Amino acid sequence: MSPRVILDPEEMPKQWYNLAADLPKPPKPYLGPDGNPVTPEMMAPIFPMNLIEQEMCTDRWVDIPDGIREVLAKWRPSPLHRAKSLEKALGTPARIYYKNESVSPAGSHKPNSAIAQAWYNKQAGTKRMTTETGAGQWGSALAFACSQVGLDLKVYMVRVSFEQKPYRKVMMETWGAECIPSPSDTTEAGRRVLAEMPDTPGSLGIAISEAVEAAVSDPSGETKYGLGSVLNHVLLHQTVIGQEAKAQLAKFGEKTPDVVIGCAGGGSNFAGLAFPFCADKIAGSEMDIIPVEPFSCPSITRGAYAYDIGDKSGMTPLMVMHTLGHDFIPSPIHAGGLRYHGMAPLVSAAVDQGLMSPRAVHQMECFEAAVQFARTEGLIVAPETSHAVAAAIQEANKATEEGKEKVILFNLSGHGLMDLKGYQAFFAGELSDYELPQEEIEGFLAGIKGFPKVV
Amino acid sequence: MSPRVILDPEEMPKQWYNLAADLPKPPKPYLGPDGNPVTPEMMAPIFPMNLIEQEMCTDRWVDIPDGIREVLAKWRPSPLHRAKSLEKALGTPARIYYKNESVSPAGSHKPNSAIAQAWYNKQAGTKRMTTETGAGQWGSALAFACSQVGLDLKVYMVRVSFEQKPYRKVMMETWGAECIPSPSDTTEAGRRVLAEMPDTPGSLGIAISEAVEAAVSDPSGETKYGLGSVLNHVLLHQTVIGQEAKAQLAKFGEKTPDVVIGCAGGGSNFAGLAFPFCADKIAGSEMDIIPVEPFSCPSITRGAYAYDIGDKSGMTPLMVMHTLGHDFIPSPIHAGGLRYHGMAPLVSAAVDQGLMSPRAVHQMECFEAAVQFARTEGLIVAPETSHAVAAAIQEANKATEEGKEKVILFNLSGHGLMDLKGYQAFFAGELSDYELPQEEIEGFLAGIKGFPKVV
Repeated sequence: MSPRVILDPEEMPKQWYNLAADLPKPPKPYLGPDGNPVTPEMMAPIFPMNLIEQEMCTDRWVDIPDGIREVLAKWRPSPLHRAKSLEKALGTPARIYYKNESVSPAGSHKPNSAIAQAWYNKQAGTKRMTTETGAGQWGSALAFACSQVGLDLKVYMVRVSFEQKPYRKVMMETWGAECIPSPSDTTEAGRRVLAEMPDTPGSLGIAISEAVEAAVSDPSGETKYGLGSVLNHVLLHQTVIGQEAKAQLAKFGEKTPDVVIGCAGGGSNFAGLAFPFCADKIAGSEMDIIPVEPFSCPSITRGAYAYDIGDKSGMTPLMVMHTLGHDFIPSPIHAGGLRYHGMAPLVSAAVDQGLMSPRAVHQMECFEAAVQFARTEGLIVAPETSHAVAAAIQEANKATEEGKEKVILFNLSGHGLMDLKGYQAFFAGELSDYELPQEEIEGFLAGIKGFPKVV
Repeated sequence: MSPRVILDPEEMPKQWYNLAADLPKPPKPYLGPDGNPVTPEMMAPIFPMNLIEQEMCTDRWVDIPDGIREVLAKWRPSPLHRAKSLEKALGTPARIYYKNESVSPAGSHKPNSAIAQAWYNKQAGTKRMTTETGAGQWGSALAFACSQVGLDLKVYMVRVSFEQKPYRKVMMETWGAECIPSPSDTTEAGRRVLAEMPDTPGSLGIAISEAVEAAVSDPSGETKYGLGSVLNHVLLHQTVIGQEAKAQLAKFGEKTPDVVIGCAGGGSNFAGLAFPFCADKIAGSEMDIIPVEPFSCPSITRGAYAYDIGDKSGMTPLMVMHTLGHDFIPSPIHAGGLRYHGMAPLVSAAVDQGLMSPRAVHQMECFEAAVQFARTEGLIVAPETSHAVAAAIQEANKATEEGKEKVILFNLSGHGLMDLKGYQAFFAGELSDYELPQEEIEGFLAGIKGFPKVV
């Protein structure tokens, strides 16, 4: 048996799966600053109407337009691998599988939504897009996507990452996008921050504020904003991952997996793999579904389940999320993509309804897991992805202790070739573990006290 | 029709193809310093006997051991893509296909031979290997391969590349290999160079000398050396590429391609794609087979066809090659993998016998082609690979002029994610074209005047 199953092109999913349709309790609506539900019109300056409709859609299945499937077919269906070498090294009776999203041109799962967002924007008459990026995965993915459909793109990259990872900018430029460090003097939001803190390293919240401002302040209305995670339509676009994985597990002769794992920053790669399996769990299948986050940014394991804004300055609606508060300042952990203060509303709701078992892991354990994975399976994973690898190894070791032949599935969300600085710091002994202190969490959460309560 | 064909796992080739068996005139033997043919015993301190036998083998087909196929199956068969987006941008009637070798864990075709070499060494009782690397592709590939079969590895990396590309070292370390800058004080050859030229940037020739010395000077005999290109057995291991491409073209409904293209430094990725097609050409099929090299290192288009050594100081046998002379000093072109003074003996023989049409291209045209390719097909290719892309575009434009529906096939030998510094320099306007002056070539070739002549 080959250690890898790739589906035929025509087996690529033709629909996206919407967990909102199956959640026992429907998700709460987004609220505006006045506390009333946000209307599509209120979001229209930011997003094109076709994506706003998708954001609010409650249908279980949403057709994937052929124009999007054609671009996805450049690398999809992505492979599902059996991690036999890792299993052997661990001496586990568990069978470990991973869905390899690192094969996309941008190196992660992000293009699954980037292509869809760019395509819908193109359909709606958008001429240029704006976005922000932290570690650089999303900015790269949208740059690739905009080149595929023919849109201009401006990316606001968190300054500290911009300086640490100069080649992410080169990647984006190669695809034709402009990439500038945030905060910048190109927006009101950026100038305000620079005036107060000229040496700030920047943050995802500030970069989102700048990117949204740059979109809405274009009087032509032809500039729109794209977000790489968190929102319902982004998670929806990622569900091709889990649907393919199901079909591929079946070809390996497996039924329902016992454990489904993904790292979770904003939540999109995790949701992409997990939601189609979560549907089976809601229908009665037994399985553990585990979103994995760093101890240094524990939004699901230790944050509040509350209304919060998605950025620093309130350009986004209020959403019910697991959140550390929008004032959260992350520690300089290398998994840049897992530093967001909140968690996708749909993932948060599924956790709140008992469908998922979130877990936090430490940075050192993650890098140790990533190195073991590289030396067995061969692939060098992104620091974000290493959280999923660490949890998969934890689960495999648990299966060994229990003597059970469990089936463990995780999402290999991206490769780490642009993030080798983190591995370098790990080998040099410069990394350590960091657990966010309780009093800090309480301090950050003070910032959401005035918001509406979840009832 | 999908833009991509991946074969089933069981369609991965079970044998390697040896062009030596089909060349109209058999290749010349390697010679020792005394001018007599090299015997297997003479090479035994450097390579294990199973690989030496393969180096001298004249069988048409060589079985691929199951142990090697099992590891290759982690990413093979690799995809064959139809470059529809590029065709559209060019407005060409040509159909352009590319074999995507960038999907290997190390990001290039190099693991095809690295896995085989590591595996044969393991079988022969080798405990550790040594090698050199220029741009870093081969060192990374052998580091990955040694981690797969359980061998230690020491990589001598040309110092200027070591300093310019610190993350290649991190990659190798992640797979468990040691990577040190060359020249180093760990070998006699290195110390000699350092004493004379303490600030030397190093060269591939020096690094080869160091790696070979480190292998042969281990008194236990348990350390062997591995080379990433040039030699017959390395090219043999790469022929899975062309065999798969043939089967995949057939699934696209194509017959014999009109043009087969690969970039050529030492010759292994080019040979891997081209040799199985060259067999058809020898049997009567019409096609152009084009090895592409930089104008700055034109070994096949402007070098001598002569006996030369493979390294700087004569640790290797004399081989008949197209060569610029082992004294050749390359210009600092970014396609680090295309800076070798010679060309694989089998490729050189095929060119000499009129089976191939070598071509030189300029650096600026290559980067322009690579950027156009990224913005259409999505993949960011290695600077080496950009030479193949540029030639494919030349051929497509020729087909447009002629109004012919040609089938063009090229090898996408690796991605450029570790080489974005080159793209950065291109965007910054820091690159230019460079054609090696004739008097310099003649100067370098003076160094081989004393060697035996090809008769």
